[in-house]
Amino acid sequence: MSSSFGSVFKISTWGESHGVGVGVVIDGCPARVPLTREMIQAELDRRRPGQSDIVTPRNEADAVEILSGVLDGLTLGTPIALSVRNKDHRSTAYDEMQHTYRPSHADYCYDAKYGIRAWAGGGRASARETIGRVAAGAVARAVVRTLCPQVEVIAWVQQVHSIICPTPAAEVCAATVEGNIVRTADPAVAEEMAAAIRSARSAGDSLGGIVACTVRNCPVGLGDPVFDKLEATLGHAMLSIPACKGFEIGSGFSAPQFRGSQHNDSFYMDGPRVRTRTNNSGGIQGGISNGEDINMRLAFKPTATLMIEQETVNDAHQPATLRGKGRHDACVLPRAVPVVESMAWLVLCDHLLRQKTVSL
Amino acid sequence: MSSSFGSVFKISTWGESHGVGVGVVIDGCPARVPLTREMIQAELDRRRPGQSDIVTPRNEADAVEILSGVLDGLTLGTPIALSVRNKDHRSTAYDEMQHTYRPSHADYCYDAKYGIRAWAGGGRASARETIGRVAAGAVARAVVRTLCPQVEVIAWVQQVHSIICPTPAAEVCAATVEGNIVRTADPAVAEEMAAAIRSARSAGDSLGGIVACTVRNCPVGLGDPVFDKLEATLGHAMLSIPACKGFEIGSGFSAPQFRGSQHNDSFYMDGPRVRTRTNNSGGIQGGISNGEDINMRLAFKPTATLMIEQETVNDAHQPATLRGKGRHDACVLPRAVPVVESMAWLVLCDHLLRQKTVSL
Amino acid sequence: MSSSFGSVFKISTWGESHGVGVGVVIDGCPARVPLTREMIQAELDRRRPGQSDIVTPRNEADAVEILSGVLDGLTLGTPIALSVRNKDHRSTAYDEMQHTYRPSHADYCYDAKYGIRAWAGGGRASARETIGRVAAGAVARAVVRTLCPQVEVIAWVQQVHSIICPTPAAEVCAATVEGNIVRTADPAVAEEMAAAIRSARSAGDSLGGIVACTVRNCPVGLGDPVFDKLEATLGHAMLSIPACKGFEIGSGFSAPQFRGSQHNDSFYMDGPRVRTRTNNSGGIQGGISNGEDINMRLAFKPTATLMIEQETVNDAHQPATLRGKGRHDACVLPRAVPVVESMAWLVLCDHLLRQKTVSL
Amino acid sequence: MSSSFGSVFKISTWGESHGVGVGVVIDGCPARVPLTREMIQAELDRRRPGQSDIVTPRNEADAVEILSGVLDGLTLGTPIALSVRNKDHRSTAYDEMQHTYRPSHADYCYDAKYGIRAWAGGGRASARETIGRVAAGAVARAVVRTLCPQVEVIAWVQQVHSIICPTPAAEVCAATVEGNIVRTADPAVAEEMAAAIRSARSAGDSLGGIVACTVRNCPVGLGDPVFDKLEATLGHAMLSIPACKGFEIGSGFSAPQFRGSQHNDSFYMDGPRVRTRTNNSGGIQGGISNGEDINMRLAFKPTATLMIEQETVNDAHQPATLRGKGRHDACVLPRAVPVVESMAWLVLCDHLLRQKTVSL
Repeated sequence: MSSSFGSVFKISTWGESHGVGVGVVIDGCPARVPLTREMIQAELDRRRPGQSDIVTPRNEADAVEILSGVLDGLTLGTPIALSVRNKDHRSTAYDEMQHTYRPSHADYCYDAKYGIRAWAGGGRASARETIGRVAAGAVARAVVRTLCPQVEVIAWVQQVHSIICPTPAAEVCAATVEGNIVRTADPAVAEEMAAAIRSARSAGDSLGGIVACTVRNCPVGLGDPVFDKLEATLGHAMLSIPACKGFEIGSGFSAPQFRGSQHNDSFYMDGPRVRTRTNNSGGIQGGISNGEDINMRLAFKPTATLMIEQETVNDAHQPATLRGKGRHDACVLPRAVPVVESMAWLVLCDHLLRQKTVSL
Repeated sequence: MSSSFGSVFKISTWGESHGVGVGVVIDGCPARVPLTREMIQAELDRRRPGQSDIVTPRNEADAVEILSGVLDGLTLGTPIALSVRNKDHRSTAYDEMQHTYRPSHADYCYDAKYGIRAWAGGGRASARETIGRVAAGAVARAVVRTLCPQVEVIAWVQQVHSIICPTPAAEVCAATVEGNIVRTADPAVAEEMAAAIRSARSAGDSLGGIVACTVRNCPVGLGDPVFDKLEATLGHAMLSIPACKGFEIGSGFSAPQFRGSQHNDSFYMDGPRVRTRTNNSGGIQGGISNGEDINMRLAFKPTATLMIEQETVNDAHQPATLRGKGRHDACVLPRAVPVVESMAWLVLCDHLLRQKTVSL
Repeated sequence: MSSSFGSVFKISTWGESHGVGVGVVIDGCPARVPLTREMIQAELDRRRPGQSDIVTPRNEADAVEILSGVLDGLTLGTPIALSVRNKDHRSTAYDEMQHTYRPSHADYCYDAKYGIRAWAGGGRASARETIGRVAAGAVARAVVRTLCPQVEVIAWVQQVHSIICPTPAAEVCAATVEGNIVRTADPAVAEEMAAAIRSARSAGDSLGGIVACTVRNCPVGLGDPVFDKLEATLGHAMLSIPACKGFEIGSGFSAPQFRGSQHNDSFYMDGPRVRTRTNNSGGIQGGISNGEDINMRLAFKPTATLMIEQETVNDAHQPATLRGKGRHDACVLPRAVPVVESMAWLVLCDHLLRQKTVSL
Repeated sequence: MSSSFGSVFKISTWGESHGVGVGVVIDGCPARVPLTREMIQAELDRRRPGQSDIVTPRNEADAVEILSGVLDGLTLGTPIALSVRNKDHRSTAYDEMQHTYRPSHADYCYDAKYGIRAWAGGGRASARETIGRVAAGAVARAVVRTLCPQVEVIAWVQQVHSIICPTPAAEVCAATVEGNIVRTADPAVAEEMAAAIRSARSAGDSLGGIVACTVRNCPVGLGDPVFDKLEATLGHAMLSIPACKGFEIGSGFSAPQFRGSQHNDSFYMDGPRVRTRTNNSGGIQGGISNGEDINMRLAFKPTATLMIEQETVNDAHQPATLRGKGRHDACVLPRAVPVVESMAWLVLCDHLLRQKTVSL
């Protein structure tokens, strides 16, 4: 029951890192949405390995095939199946890990849960699992953009280790983010961050950081009160991304510093539009979008796979040591950016379709 | 579609702050779980208003009635309906708010979403909505404790405004938390926090803070990989609590400060048990519990209702001002503690039942 | 997981025959639908006991209370909780059945499933469970009628034992059906059927029959291909009604008698409307409504509770005999008519709301 | 939302008749179930075209590929993706149907629902859609058989047009059914039926019939009371099969002929086992299996595609005529048998896993 997400726009992802491939089935996509293979491939290219010298050199083209649900550039209303074949198995690189639990990886927990060894490369716990998310996110984006062409979702790397990009959310420019290999909002900061990542990699170590994400021009009224508040479903989506350790919306963990009189967002009229003078709410009030920018931040831990020897145990419950082989990211954040955006599109798309059922 | 939560242990809450009452239906509770009205009432008493001088004086006994699903102290396997009648409507206190949007409240968004004015007291956006959560949480607790008697869930107020309770999660004692009106882990800090809350209330203002929550002795193997990771469903649950602005698990937003070699939790054998030397993972790896304590933190914003005049607009889109009346908490955190625990029990119960379907 | 139904318009029923009461929570009802207590009560009055001399004399007013989700005659978009208190427990009538399995009842199966004795009156297996269906069905009807005022749903008793009402579906008149105590489509046949029911009751025996149901003016396009075909969800709904043993749509079990050239429904233009010359499809093709009348038939077995001594076993697995006491229907069909209509409204409402998410 | 089925053992099928291929993703399959490609292929071979001279000669090997979720002959607990490539598009055969609505097909309804023309071959409305069902059903069978090795599901053709196979359900032998091309229970009747099918085909016409299905040695306690009664979910499953017009369980549409005293199934002890002397209930009471054989019957209409000229309209709403080309079954029943069995396995598997969550 674990690999499905969404309530009306439902996705089911499948695939293991070192199996035949990975993919997704989307059930509940409206008909007549313009959609091409290129639209999906473009997003996959943003997350694929080997894009630059600071990400894993695993060589995967990650070419997507549309297996169903689209004809002549339009969705049919039927399930859309998307598949990406794995090219570069190299599972021999994982041989010695077969019986040893990698620290801060899912190996031990999978064993305990399923009673069967997740295989080389981490199975579903591999970063390759996010391919299904990004492919589905591209479809969600097409749906949202067809219904509300003005909606924008931009994620960027706001922090790597102790290096912070100070650009305010409202000033972040998508082209700038895409214009540097770190995907941060300021090219000068990008160089610092890239240097830190290269340095950590040289030491066989890894770095974490913060990805921020903003949604602009979101329609008012999305999100359901009570359990499926917009921030709750966004939080669910983001916290399900591998290595994400925290999620905040609006003022987030800085909220306690404010008094109510400082934190409340006063309403005023901006021409015909009800707006708020501040945006501590992060664009969501009572679980429902209010039309202001939706501002989120996600904390990512440093990658667990290290080229440094670590203490651990094996599946016979004997002490062991382990040093990573294979090809891994010393910092996942640059490649996490399109994943974060995809999860945001998936949540927005689902709530947008749900909203159609709320009013007469 | 908003008021339901859970996959196997499913709850549906209902009720408005100033309507007939509030309640919940639980579908999917196993049979033969020991359950009494008193077990549920005890938890409701922890969240009810009027417990102390630092919470809202609204006078509600919040007496629960079990309408179905329980016979002679045992669950029947059939739906459990729980209901609490509203006693103290006082909706006249809200009259002037009827056409004015309260800043940082849900009023404007509800109007935009539903095209109909949520009535006095906030409708579903009121804190009274959490009664259904706490009542259902008490049932979830009974189920989990019947299956795994050793599991403990303890939440406490870790911060109010700038006052921090430094007690480490592993040393927090439930009796101590319940022994002070703030529900923090250290009685001396509790006095400071209570003073700050009283002072804010006197000024017509409000305070936010942090609630921490730890789960001890959680079975290994709970949580589903990919979208329903344990931290993702916990995050969903917690971020759906009114006023919650952020959620973190384990190292959370401090994760970026670590290098991978510092952050990884080494495995070792503790007798027959696989354990980790540190717990930056917060008891969850790859979305699945590893048996270590599950440590979460939630950020809460200061209450939006203030006894201070605020700028706003009304539903005719004219500028207006508003000063709160009614009876409200100047700080929701003491009463949020049982709500946080309830959401944790609900998530644990659902995953525990789901886990029964995973292995043969 | 058993007491919930619907995908967007979701209902959760609760309550036992001899507990505090029965009811339903509806999650996903659109806002601003005109709805009053009287609209719901009117339908409950059609299914309540004691309406005439041919149904059970159990004396229950079945007065519904709206607990939430409705204000000033309009739905709010929030969950609608409806409750009916049980008045007439009389559980002593069931004392001797407490340890004896009633033949063709659910007693033995409940024991096997839950490991706990369903109590007097049959618990959830009682006909009182259908109150939640009828109450929710009245809300569904209000939603459908608000969106599509022309839709009609009419069910009637088409057969009792060997007595058949020959009125064609297209000629059945709701007022006529409601004008006789059997709820059949022809008053003359009604007298014959009533006499047969009285005669069976005098003998301590019971009768089954057929309920037919037609939906007129259904919008074209409802129903989802593949698993949630309109006939499949209607079948699910109808086969979940206690005592229903069969469901057919259109030509149904007579379909095998036709050759394809006889069975196919030719299309023709009726003014601007695409219509079919015959309606063997029963208004549904490929799982989707085509605008013709949706014609269904349901087979009901004779009531299992008899005032005749029957062979059985008890829960100690000893042979036993049993003779019904309590007050029961010798024929459930007259009271099943509003239940059948309610299930049809629930399915139509859900598909109507789902359809809003299919197209742009 | 249409192409998913199941509550715990969830499947999502995808694919169009004349697209790249068809397939299914299974989410919620337990780990460590023995499963091979051959087990799935064997069932697909039973439904594939071209098996005999009485089914469509469309030449499709329907070779299945396991894309994920299985390693070394065991399921991993992760999603199982199964895919079958289409070999034999021949969409030119459908060219002239592109703008003409085939009578009693889904063409017109799809247009009305989605506002886009389902393409050549019927898209999701094609019989090829059932490949996903059969592939998933083979996995469900593996799960059920691993948990309860004694469970048997046997479907057979009980009637073709007016030719009836009189073999009682309890005497039907799987090997006999599989031993004749019609898949009926009596070889002599099979010849008659085959002759009737050949004769209809020669005339360009088609025949319908009845498929019966029995489940033997079903564990007691499966099925949920109220909406997800075992017969209701079986009915949902079966009525979703293309061309199915009716479903009955146990006495079904003959139930009205009985009085209660004739219809009730008396309990008696058969050694340690509670059994019933008759089985009018069809193995299900109160929605829950009682351990007796579960006996179902499904009515199938004659195939809609005919090689005879028929009156219809086109998508410009002009009168038109149509004569089928392409390669079609003159009678779908022989190939429906494995589909019916697959749907039964899917329902049983889901309820078996759900049952694990009901008791402690």
